[in-house]
Amino acid sequence: MQSPLELLRTRFHPFLPPCLLDITSYTLHEDSHKIPFKKELLPLFPFGSTLSLMRGAKGSLPSLRPMKIGVVFSGGQAPGGHNVIAGLFDALQTLSAENELIGFLEGPAGILKGKSRIISKEEMEKFLNTGGFDLLGSGRTKIETIEQFEQAKVTCQKLSLDALVIIGGDDSNTNAALLTEYFHQEKCATCVIGIPKTIDGDLKNEYVPISFGFDTASKVYAELIGNLARDALSAKKYYHFVRLMGRTASHIALECALLTHPNYAFIAEEVAAKKMTLQQVVSELCTLILERSAIGKSYGVILIPEGLIEWIPEMSRLIQELNILLAQKDLSEDEAIQKLSQESSACFSLLPSSIQKQLLLTRDSHGNVQVSLIETERLLAELVSIEMQKHKQVAFHPLTHFFGYEGRAAFPSNFDASYCYTLGYVAAIGAIHKLSGYMCFVSNLHEPIANWSIGAVPFASLMHTEIRKGKEKPVLAKALVSLEGKAFKSFVKQRDAWKKEDHYTFPGPMQFEGDVSVCYAPPLSLQLENS
Amino acid sequence: MQSPLELLRTRFHPFLPPCLLDITSYTLHEDSHKIPFKKELLPLFPFGSTLSLMRGAKGSLPSLRPMKIGVVFSGGQAPGGHNVIAGLFDALQTLSAENELIGFLEGPAGILKGKSRIISKEEMEKFLNTGGFDLLGSGRTKIETIEQFEQAKVTCQKLSLDALVIIGGDDSNTNAALLTEYFHQEKCATCVIGIPKTIDGDLKNEYVPISFGFDTASKVYAELIGNLARDALSAKKYYHFVRLMGRTASHIALECALLTHPNYAFIAEEVAAKKMTLQQVVSELCTLILERSAIGKSYGVILIPEGLIEWIPEMSRLIQELNILLAQKDLSEDEAIQKLSQESSACFSLLPSSIQKQLLLTRDSHGNVQVSLIETERLLAELVSIEMQKHKQVAFHPLTHFFGYEGRAAFPSNFDASYCYTLGYVAAIGAIHKLSGYMCFVSNLHEPIANWSIGAVPFASLMHTEIRKGKEKPVLAKALVSLEGKAFKSFVKQRDAWKKEDHYTFPGPMQFEGDVSVCYAPPLSLQLENS
Repeated sequence: MQSPLELLRTRFHPFLPPCLLDITSYTLHEDSHKIPFKKELLPLFPFGSTLSLMRGAKGSLPSLRPMKIGVVFSGGQAPGGHNVIAGLFDALQTLSAENELIGFLEGPAGILKGKSRIISKEEMEKFLNTGGFDLLGSGRTKIETIEQFEQAKVTCQKLSLDALVIIGGDDSNTNAALLTEYFHQEKCATCVIGIPKTIDGDLKNEYVPISFGFDTASKVYAELIGNLARDALSAKKYYHFVRLMGRTASHIALECALLTHPNYAFIAEEVAAKKMTLQQVVSELCTLILERSAIGKSYGVILIPEGLIEWIPEMSRLIQELNILLAQKDLSEDEAIQKLSQESSACFSLLPSSIQKQLLLTRDSHGNVQVSLIETERLLAELVSIEMQKHKQVAFHPLTHFFGYEGRAAFPSNFDASYCYTLGYVAAIGAIHKLSGYMCFVSNLHEPIANWSIGAVPFASLMHTEIRKGKEKPVLAKALVSLEGKAFKSFVKQRDAWKKEDHYTFPGPMQFEGDVSVCYAPPLSLQLENS
Repeated sequence: MQSPLELLRTRFHPFLPPCLLDITSYTLHEDSHKIPFKKELLPLFPFGSTLSLMRGAKGSLPSLRPMKIGVVFSGGQAPGGHNVIAGLFDALQTLSAENELIGFLEGPAGILKGKSRIISKEEMEKFLNTGGFDLLGSGRTKIETIEQFEQAKVTCQKLSLDALVIIGGDDSNTNAALLTEYFHQEKCATCVIGIPKTIDGDLKNEYVPISFGFDTASKVYAELIGNLARDALSAKKYYHFVRLMGRTASHIALECALLTHPNYAFIAEEVAAKKMTLQQVVSELCTLILERSAIGKSYGVILIPEGLIEWIPEMSRLIQELNILLAQKDLSEDEAIQKLSQESSACFSLLPSSIQKQLLLTRDSHGNVQVSLIETERLLAELVSIEMQKHKQVAFHPLTHFFGYEGRAAFPSNFDASYCYTLGYVAAIGAIHKLSGYMCFVSNLHEPIANWSIGAVPFASLMHTEIRKGKEKPVLAKALVSLEGKAFKSFVKQRDAWKKEDHYTFPGPMQFEGDVSVCYAPPLSLQLENS
């Protein structure tokens, strides 16, 4: 059953930048700017390395026979995904009613298994501006082996796809880059086009200002953090330890901190740069609590990025050792613990048993500790509690929260709704131009939509190599929070005042109508970076 | 710093029912309807038992000297509290610029300590339509002993208060009833007036359709549950176990279930009525999971009211025994466990150690187990996991959530904003009429605001007696979910379809502007009860 808001949202038409209003008179042209390309990647990307940056420009489209385009959601949900497909659908339909958009079901596995269906106008109308990926489903299956590339080729050829649009994060776009090479080498005519998706905000670069979904997820979490701050300020007796989804990078924590002004927010990249120990992290919080207690305050709000734990050097080392030891199938958990280095063993034994248990939990598909399952907020609350027992006169009542899944499938903000719809249009133009091996982007996102411009950047130019499972592998560079960036610097400038004075800001629930000040704003960190 | 939404909200004027638009021509009159009164309460309420129900009616107000009214927040936050004060403030100012509103700081303790301050127009403008109780702070101190009543009297007399308005839940209003008697007996001229506040929704009766705050909190939780449902439907691999705040009664769980259509929602009152064991509760979920697995679904959303655990007879017995044993100061925790009955000991030993630990945690001010600290969602997820190990072919990945503090201090919905503002007006009229021993109410809340009417009901008529700490005590009857009510019946009628088919509804974030369908709706359960 559609809720009243859902009904209303499906009737809202996302905005397009003016350049795309007449898609027949707008194209993508090669940019004169030469993109640097890492030489060591040349053997892996003989095709991709020949590609140029493309930027939107006036021009007419080539005359076309009817097209068939495939689209797939890859990986975790991000708000706005349905609008990428809606933009793609509408752009294709505007050009020719005979164009077909085919959706693969349940993620990349749908490509491998050939599970797909034609997307209809009625479906699109029902899903416009809605959250989630439930139109098609998604999945974490990777298309990364030669066998899988071949399966994908068979599927694309069977369906005679002109292009395959992959809506995914860094891993999915890395694999898309390799798939492009395979398709090119195998003379498969299907173009491969990527769309930068992830709430984590770590898929961005010189061309892609931000991945879609980041804005909405941050706004959902900021709503809740603001509510907790107001509760803390009213009840004056709880410390809220809030862990935020976002994997390795702390973009979400930084954005939420800028939006809500908590008393303390860890930025994992800074913790790593300062080489802080777990004890130092705990001490920072104890100092905060004691200083606030001295001025009569026994409440507060603390933000903890999901990735914090892996950025604390001693924890990082422990996790690495565990990853290696637990990968040895002949070792039991107990035996693995016995084999830890002295330092890691000491670190492990300091952890509360609940956290020890979490560290030993099921690995992810890379065989690594699932950082999202480690309840860092409880770990820190517990360690701070132990420390605070030395100060019995100081009231300390922690409450822990984890905000993650609540934000991945929310109704997209007006920013994400229009951004995604525009990305769908860019993908359509890319497909028409037979661009393969490109990630679509929209520039000037921090400015009003009227100033947005579009483009596409070769995957290959965004790659670097990393050691994974002992092998050098090409990966799309993950963008971390830059400690030299304007957003982080703005945070640093403000945060001391937030510690003892309460500068909480209460963003409230996302609004879709009403004054523009409440119903449209690009991510604050993006605005600051471009200020 | 005020957020853009906060700025906009403080400029929004809440609606009043037309009858209150000219407060000088509207009063409260005695209703001819005789309220039944329990004879056994007569000795406790010699004054209160003489009072009649009051209802709004046209009429002129008595001519008045300038008034001084005190107001206090008591207990946990509920969205809309600031608007009660704003309504009170505006009503008083409309009558005379010399009227004064005095706020007690940090809850009832502020009355005992004589900590108060005059509330200014500037403050009111800043806090209108905002969440939280941070204008004054709140607290859980009870005013329940003769010494405390005397202290309150001293404070009220010192400030020459014409009335004391207590914004509180069932306990606070119970104490207000007793305070009224003390003030009357001691010839203290300060009238005592109550405002029905609690997100839990259990403070309602024939006259009070719903306490304020329930609507907003339910809508905040429903937003998040909808988001999780959409995520579940997209990722198709997680079971979300969502515990909802609400103490003993399951009103919030029922309202959220009606708003979001989860696959399963426990209503604790039903679990109690059916005398379900913990094992049966777990079995219900296992059956659901197995049945969904059989149709290829390994995801779902399950709602768990905070009070569930105390309504499972064997758990209830265990908690009662622990309450008694742990109250004995000479018993250690281990000794207390040794002394449990055989049945309770067996029940205790079945629990995961983390839950055992939580059961032994700090008591509340009544000396009872703090039900809100028991993580029932983890208990059930863990017990279901153990059970599901018998079905290794069935994928079961639970994720647990607790939604509570996020909803207590949210921006009030348009419903709560106007309801609370109206309650403030009713309190002002009550004070002008020197009504003492009354709880304010607004009727017809399920209808458009134009149809709302106002009234005040004697606290004493709402009381009954309960055994607390071995003594018979007067308490305000807590309203539980009625298994005969239309809201529950509507849920029962729909829920079987929700189990296997996915009928999730996604309410999205609360909206404040735009189409009335999205920015104004009374609680759904209230609408159903009156349908």
